[in-house]
Amino acid sequence: MKTILFSQEDIRKVVSHVGIDSFMDQMIKRFYAALREFDAEKNPTPKRSGFQYTSPIVGLLEWMPVMQVGEHITVKIVGYHPENPDKKQLPTILSTISFFDATSGHLIGLADGTFLTAVRTGAASGVASDLLAHPDSKVIGLIGAGAQAITQLHAVLRVRRIEEVLVYDTDDAAAQSFQQRAADIHSNIRVASLDELTEGSDIICTATSVGIGEGPVFEDRNLKPWVHVNAVGADFPGKIEVPLSLLKRSAVCPDFLAQTSVEGECQQLAPGEIGPNLAELAQQAERFSELQQQPTVFDSTGWALEDQVAMALLMEIAEPAGAGTLIQLESISDDPLDPYKFLNDAENTSRGAKVSATESLDKVRA
Amino acid sequence: MKTILFSQEDIRKVVSHVGIDSFMDQMIKRFYAALREFDAEKNPTPKRSGFQYTSPIVGLLEWMPVMQVGEHITVKIVGYHPENPDKKQLPTILSTISFFDATSGHLIGLADGTFLTAVRTGAASGVASDLLAHPDSKVIGLIGAGAQAITQLHAVLRVRRIEEVLVYDTDDAAAQSFQQRAADIHSNIRVASLDELTEGSDIICTATSVGIGEGPVFEDRNLKPWVHVNAVGADFPGKIEVPLSLLKRSAVCPDFLAQTSVEGECQQLAPGEIGPNLAELAQQAERFSELQQQPTVFDSTGWALEDQVAMALLMEIAEPAGAGTLIQLESISDDPLDPYKFLNDAENTSRGAKVSATESLDKVRA
Repeated sequence: MKTILFSQEDIRKVVSHVGIDSFMDQMIKRFYAALREFDAEKNPTPKRSGFQYTSPIVGLLEWMPVMQVGEHITVKIVGYHPENPDKKQLPTILSTISFFDATSGHLIGLADGTFLTAVRTGAASGVASDLLAHPDSKVIGLIGAGAQAITQLHAVLRVRRIEEVLVYDTDDAAAQSFQQRAADIHSNIRVASLDELTEGSDIICTATSVGIGEGPVFEDRNLKPWVHVNAVGADFPGKIEVPLSLLKRSAVCPDFLAQTSVEGECQQLAPGEIGPNLAELAQQAERFSELQQQPTVFDSTGWALEDQVAMALLMEIAEPAGAGTLIQLESISDDPLDPYKFLNDAENTSRGAKVSATESLDKVRA
Repeated sequence: MKTILFSQEDIRKVVSHVGIDSFMDQMIKRFYAALREFDAEKNPTPKRSGFQYTSPIVGLLEWMPVMQVGEHITVKIVGYHPENPDKKQLPTILSTISFFDATSGHLIGLADGTFLTAVRTGAASGVASDLLAHPDSKVIGLIGAGAQAITQLHAVLRVRRIEEVLVYDTDDAAAQSFQQRAADIHSNIRVASLDELTEGSDIICTATSVGIGEGPVFEDRNLKPWVHVNAVGADFPGKIEVPLSLLKRSAVCPDFLAQTSVEGECQQLAPGEIGPNLAELAQQAERFSELQQQPTVFDSTGWALEDQVAMALLMEIAEPAGAGTLIQLESISDDPLDPYKFLNDAENTSRGAKVSATESLDKVRA
């Protein structure tokens, strides 16, 4: 009973095998399909929980579980530490995804989720943009030019014919370096002022590390009448990116209402002011197609269902790509009733020297 | 920034390096020390949560997190599937332990928790028995002769001079095979009737897979006046092992009250009927030493603090034992703002063939 392990090198192999564009396309399509088939009974996704802290450093570590009843359980453990890029040369968001057999608890696969999280968060905005953005959207504005902005842009490019990319970041160096970082994705990227960006964009993606109580990150002024916002940064109680007046006059569509009400833009709204969720949109796309002509906000906090789709895609491409390493992780033997038996199973190993119990008796409390 | 991975083979190396007896002794001593220093503010352990199911199979998968504020976060994901031994040749309890840097979210280490869980669950009963069992305890009775019974016995042997081991299981084959499985641990093991066991034992360990609503697993009849029970099997709402009348006349000591009230023996009691918890016992051992002369029950549901101790012990012995493999798990590069950059970092890999976005545009909903 082995476990398949996906390291950075394995993720590289998988993406090289199909190409990053096709990988993103497949993630978008599969997430779309998962939304259309979504049934909360068969696919329960409890609200994530975790540790949130502000001292000695701002951060959180959360677990995001989802079950396909009787089949698999996917658990992502994800960290968010906004000081990582500056202080530790690490991404803000790091994560690991574990994939279990829901009939035995066996760990089938384990993968780095850092890359997959960036891609699936992009893919969710790709789906939302395809459903909600104006069909002729040509200009996208990115507020926050960090790691998530790359995959936001990439995903939206897969669903709309974007001609110009405007970028703004409170950290000018991040805005300036974006063009180079995204050079493989789009050739027409320009750093813009916040006003220029909000006025000119058909689609706006906010992916910032704005502080708690310090949002919103732009103003509701001179926006296009059909502006669509992918708001992906809010993930903390009190953290918001979108101005309230825009939310009030928009169709605000949560990824997962139980979460967005606590840590997303929906914190700012009463229940009656919140629009259809992403699964409802995908299941009744025709009915909601008029929303493309009016202001819309995708309130994206990140949903475990996205991780389930990402892990399944990785597992599927792994085989033709020759990626992944099988390891004997679990300490088991041919006798499930003897937790020590595996110690003697291999050659040249033993349970080690016997130590008399009486010798140690008085040392326990030492 | 690598991750140290502990497979079954690495666990074997670590245990061989020090010997299984010494490994158990160290686990007991360190857990004792952790209890004495325990401070809920510095070491928060949220109640575990997870998926519980009864169809198509009885089982649960839970996550058990614990933080050392500003230092580390340990998360164990543990499965409990009582049909595993018979149907899948797998242990009932399987698990993985992840160990994170609580200032960056970096995954420092990842280990199989199947063996560690068995050992630390034993070690907790070892500590409880040292605090609560009669000093002259000579006979131990094991109700439930599965995998956990091995480590329960092993741990108690480290803290009391046990002369005779009595075993009972509703599955006679499991009871019969116990002597052979535990031969390295004690030479005087005898299968007994339930009545004989409960009458003759100074210490009783219950480690059963009794069904919900089907407990208790023994009767409160002819017990020794100082009997100490380590009740480790209850881990589900409605699952109990110890008769209510015994609980009512005993000092019932929970490992972690927030959990034992929901899924342990403490479910059967009102708050005022519950005794000091294990940390309080360890911190005031003198004050509570009289309890060794009266009936006591350790209500052990399994506590994340035990996993933190187990993981720290593993990490410490790994170095001198030459165990563990460093892997580059997280998909990161020298630019934390570019989630795709690592794809180009290695030779002979690339982002793969470019696919035109317009090609895929209409396929998204296909």
